Amino acid sequence: MANVVIQNIERADRAAADALASFGVATVHEAQGRTGLLGAHMRPIYPGARISGPAVTVSLPPCDNWMIHVAVEQCREGDVLVVAPTSPSDAGYFGELLACSLSARGVRGLVIEGGCRDIGPLTNMRFPVWSRSVSAQGTVKETLGSVNVPIVCAGAAINPGDVIVADDDGVIVVPQADAAAVVEKAKEREAKEANTRKRLLAGELGLDIYGMRERLEAKGLQYK
Amino acid sequence: MANVVIQNIERADRAAADALASFGVATVHEAQGRTGLLGAHMRPIYPGARISGPAVTVSLPPCDNWMIHVAVEQCREGDVLVVAPTSPSDAGYFGELLACSLSARGVRGLVIEGGCRDIGPLTNMRFPVWSRSVSAQGTVKETLGSVNVPIVCAGAAINPGDVIVADDDGVIVVPQADAAAVVEKAKEREAKEANTRKRLLAGELGLDIYGMRERLEAKGLQYK
Amino acid sequence: MANVVIQNIERADRAAADALASFGVATVHEAQGRTGLLGAHMRPIYPGARISGPAVTVSLPPCDNWMIHVAVEQCREGDVLVVAPTSPSDAGYFGELLACSLSARGVRGLVIEGGCRDIGPLTNMRFPVWSRSVSAQGTVKETLGSVNVPIVCAGAAINPGDVIVADDDGVIVVPQADAAAVVEKAKEREAKEANTRKRLLAGELGLDIYGMRERLEAKGLQYK
Amino acid sequence: MANVVIQNIERADRAAADALASFGVATVHEAQGRTGLLGAHMRPIYPGARISGPAVTVSLPPCDNWMIHVAVEQCREGDVLVVAPTSPSDAGYFGELLACSLSARGVRGLVIEGGCRDIGPLTNMRFPVWSRSVSAQGTVKETLGSVNVPIVCAGAAINPGDVIVADDDGVIVVPQADAAAVVEKAKEREAKEANTRKRLLAGELGLDIYGMRERLEAKGLQYK
Amino acid sequence: MANVVIQNIERADRAAADALASFGVATVHEAQGRTGLLGAHMRPIYPGARISGPAVTVSLPPCDNWMIHVAVEQCREGDVLVVAPTSPSDAGYFGELLACSLSARGVRGLVIEGGCRDIGPLTNMRFPVWSRSVSAQGTVKETLGSVNVPIVCAGAAINPGDVIVADDDGVIVVPQADAAAVVEKAKEREAKEANTRKRLLAGELGLDIYGMRERLEAKGLQYK
Amino acid sequence: MANVVIQNIERADRAAADALASFGVATVHEAQGRTGLLGAHMRPIYPGARISGPAVTVSLPPCDNWMIHVAVEQCREGDVLVVAPTSPSDAGYFGELLACSLSARGVRGLVIEGGCRDIGPLTNMRFPVWSRSVSAQGTVKETLGSVNVPIVCAGAAINPGDVIVADDDGVIVVPQADAAAVVEKAKEREAKEANTRKRLLAGELGLDIYGMRERLEAKGLQYK
Repeated sequence: MANVVIQNIERADRAAADALASFGVATVHEAQGRTGLLGAHMRPIYPGARISGPAVTVSLPPCDNWMIHVAVEQCREGDVLVVAPTSPSDAGYFGELLACSLSARGVRGLVIEGGCRDIGPLTNMRFPVWSRSVSAQGTVKETLGSVNVPIVCAGAAINPGDVIVADDDGVIVVPQADAAAVVEKAKEREAKEANTRKRLLAGELGLDIYGMRERLEAKGLQYK
Repeated sequence: MANVVIQNIERADRAAADALASFGVATVHEAQGRTGLLGAHMRPIYPGARISGPAVTVSLPPCDNWMIHVAVEQCREGDVLVVAPTSPSDAGYFGELLACSLSARGVRGLVIEGGCRDIGPLTNMRFPVWSRSVSAQGTVKETLGSVNVPIVCAGAAINPGDVIVADDDGVIVVPQADAAAVVEKAKEREAKEANTRKRLLAGELGLDIYGMRERLEAKGLQYK
Repeated sequence: MANVVIQNIERADRAAADALASFGVATVHEAQGRTGLLGAHMRPIYPGARISGPAVTVSLPPCDNWMIHVAVEQCREGDVLVVAPTSPSDAGYFGELLACSLSARGVRGLVIEGGCRDIGPLTNMRFPVWSRSVSAQGTVKETLGSVNVPIVCAGAAINPGDVIVADDDGVIVVPQADAAAVVEKAKEREAKEANTRKRLLAGELGLDIYGMRERLEAKGLQYK
Repeated sequence: MANVVIQNIERADRAAADALASFGVATVHEAQGRTGLLGAHMRPIYPGARISGPAVTVSLPPCDNWMIHVAVEQCREGDVLVVAPTSPSDAGYFGELLACSLSARGVRGLVIEGGCRDIGPLTNMRFPVWSRSVSAQGTVKETLGSVNVPIVCAGAAINPGDVIVADDDGVIVVPQADAAAVVEKAKEREAKEANTRKRLLAGELGLDIYGMRERLEAKGLQYK
Repeated sequence: MANVVIQNIERADRAAADALASFGVATVHEAQGRTGLLGAHMRPIYPGARISGPAVTVSLPPCDNWMIHVAVEQCREGDVLVVAPTSPSDAGYFGELLACSLSARGVRGLVIEGGCRDIGPLTNMRFPVWSRSVSAQGTVKETLGSVNVPIVCAGAAINPGDVIVADDDGVIVVPQADAAAVVEKAKEREAKEANTRKRLLAGELGLDIYGMRERLEAKGLQYK
Repeated sequence: MANVVIQNIERADRAAADALASFGVATVHEAQGRTGLLGAHMRPIYPGARISGPAVTVSLPPCDNWMIHVAVEQCREGDVLVVAPTSPSDAGYFGELLACSLSARGVRGLVIEGGCRDIGPLTNMRFPVWSRSVSAQGTVKETLGSVNVPIVCAGAAINPGDVIVADDDGVIVVPQADAAAVVEKAKEREAKEANTRKRLLAGELGLDIYGMRERLEAKGLQYK
């Protein structure tokens, strides 16, 4: 396994990558056939952020954040950095200084299956992070990893250039080639849901709107 | 095990069910002899909510939220919906649309030993949920369960019509028949605590207020 | 093991103990050679608090908070109370009334490897707590422990009088004798970081600022 | 909540209670409609044990095993002791001496949602325990609980006299009134499975034995 | 996402796939550059098994084991079945009957990021399973998934035909194309380790055998 | 924090250190006043081992096992090696080769709050390990730590030369100065328990042997 930095990756279509944030993780998850969710242990460090953008991926050794420094240079405006250690650890790989550097390049946020620190400063500067833990524990810069190679992060396979969507519900990956189609399906779903929402708020029942009563009876549900 | 929906349940006395929210979970827990707490993994999706009301209970298969749709119809103004899968799973059984439907019926909140999604929209519409996880993962509508049968949720036995109290400390169940008595005991406790609070804030010590010094000495505590 | 209360402990230098809060947990952690962090499961009950002060330590039996009442009397203005059960449990050892008592004595906050309750009232009165869980479950007052003896809390060895620093990143202990030196090192680090922060925000890369390119090449990193 | 010891409980039919062990937990679980399983964190302290018998139930405070001593007297030959603390803790509530006492009365084993100690001696004397943890941590004898009241143990509601079945797969409760019927259904299931097992071992496919191919095709499964 | 069964997959070279078991997971992990390990929560249901073989992969919905029945038909002698639900759940997807069916086809074992049941019978028939939990909880057969598509299982990306190696240390995947090369490297490593083992057992120190003393001194280690 | 290897540590009295194994962890825990237990997540890699001996302690960086190689040289016949990373990680710090080296020096076993690998070979050679996880993941040799300094391992403070006792119940530390006294108390406890065991096996009740009935009645226990 050579340690490589792939410099010219193809990124998902910009319009689609930007648009996906507006739908949110739950809608995108449904729109792409319930695939691509990262594990539910990936939580935002503060509530209310919602982002999307192409992934710059980092594979690095446990408790070593050297490759994040390398990855910064590969990031462009609108990207999302995605980091996965090769072995689980909750050390604090990322903090305020790296966030300053990513902010300066227009990166929208970080997804890391590890720990994050400087929660206060990151919250104040509104640089969103989704991580599996919060920890002040520092890391070393001793061992190489790779940038922009395929990785598995929190149980999801992610290729560089795939679109990451993240909000208070968690994180999802949309394969680069599917981004535009998922936007279309998400729009359809949202349009349909807007109508359903109105009817439900007016007091109609889902049992009637979705026509569930007959199938429930056929399955044998008994009302008493 | 037939799959049933019990339509006419007896609910706890309305005045008592409403009053319990004002005391909060910790006081109610003490007032009813330290019983009825749900597991500490049941956390609110946003801080600051405090509710109480009679339980409409749902027992459903893992990763299948069909019965929640069935249960909506059984809810009245002031109720709290309580959902327990028959096997543990963290899928996202509940989201914004179901919350719209419950809101329209005046339901005060949801307690679910599973996952919840649409955290952002639920926070904005102030529909409180206590869940064991947050997950965008969708569920299916294939297998029946039951509504308004006795369930175990997060380690607590809950009967339909029992009062649920939930706040930032967690969730507790008060058996229907005990609700009024627990209100009385909670009032007494609160009155007593108000006085103690004043004395403690004034600098008196609990050691003196509670008369602990003698018993500590008898047990052998040594001051050095 | 006698059960003792040590009444006259030596506390860390007041100026140093006070100053450490301003640097935050992550900087202090680096400044003292990456030692002293408590486990990452110790989380604040509300975001935004940052405190420091000498530790008054409590060793108590599981599910028994009697010794906290004893410890209050040993606390002075500026102290931080640190509580460790001798066996793991998530019961709610601490709530609003004890916080009133500690507030009246000028105690800055609580660190407890157990559960905390009354989250709402504690948040309103701004009494910060770092705990491993939130639980309304009450505790008893039956068995003795000790106050101001050496303890292990969340994996860190803590002596009475050591400085505790806690913020949104977690909790760290600074040995009493090291407090002043750690303040100096933290100041140096902060000064250096202020400059780095400015350069990073201006778009310079850490790869260049830290001079990493040569070592990366020597280790064999390949750019493609 | 009075602290009571109910002395004369009705126990499930002896023949049924004894017979259920022979089917094992998984078959009993299916035979009673997939209900009654205790949480998967309840693990045997050594492999290979399989027991069944009526439950003598114990509700006790966390980290206090006094009520187990009280419960011993209420046990008869063939019983299974089931213990649930009112708040989670992993202390070692049970060890060799209590096992000697239970053995002397013919008790078949222990199910406890807490910790167990003396694993070596318990293994040597073949007294099986299903617990959520192993811990040498001792408990106190200070606070009362109750014996032979309804409890929730590891998420399952258990009444005194209900049948407990436990093996390497975990633990299940069969309501007293259902025991005989569940034995019948388990027998049927076992007979059917014996035949299926033979056919599968001979190389026939479940797809054919269970007639699944048509429904798979109807749902849209594509072979490529 | 169509639901598909890919019938003709390319499998790793048979000799290499068979040979990998003899080295064990730890050696294979080192031999392929410390990549490919599945998460440490994947544990064998009984100690002592060691297998290797090409993966037949299954992606299925949570709490639904229908696709395992479909996958059996796609298995050949020497294969290892690898199953990953699309959302985490610990239900018991697999038991004795499916093991009989797989045994009849010569399948060497199962790797499943979910629950397994019938631990006793599976141990007796020596059909090894690596799972994330043990649970008797049954699953349904309602929703389609896919067979022999790329999956992520316990954090590792696995393609059909890749080699799975599993023993008491856990589970690792070797990409199909690398299998033969990894065998060679594992042989070299083993030869080297055999010699080192002999020297260490004779009392030589690793500090000397590996020539570490100089580098330790250069890094500043002080002997006192 | 200098990185140091303390070469001449004082070890606990040999006779006492050797004798403690015979009592087992639970008895030693009681004999020293219920202190010193390591966390219950420290489990043996195979059942049935029971050891005791003076601790050689290792503090090392996460995912880096270099210091274990350094520590081997400091071990003598009868010692127990105790390893704690400065930040939590589950990598496999220890395997067969290091065990060969320790065996050659007469070391009795390893206690590590991290991962262990080569479970099969370690079991075959009967080198016992108590660890928090099993993982084949390799570690690096890049960063220094210290040998024979005070450490916190799994929540317990351990000084070099203290006695470690470990068996199927877990791990406990006995301070060097207390070892002989704890042996005496353990002997007394064992003598007393031998008599109690005989009476319990003969059918006498603990309620009577321990004289509990009166105190139970005084506390208000009601028999019905």
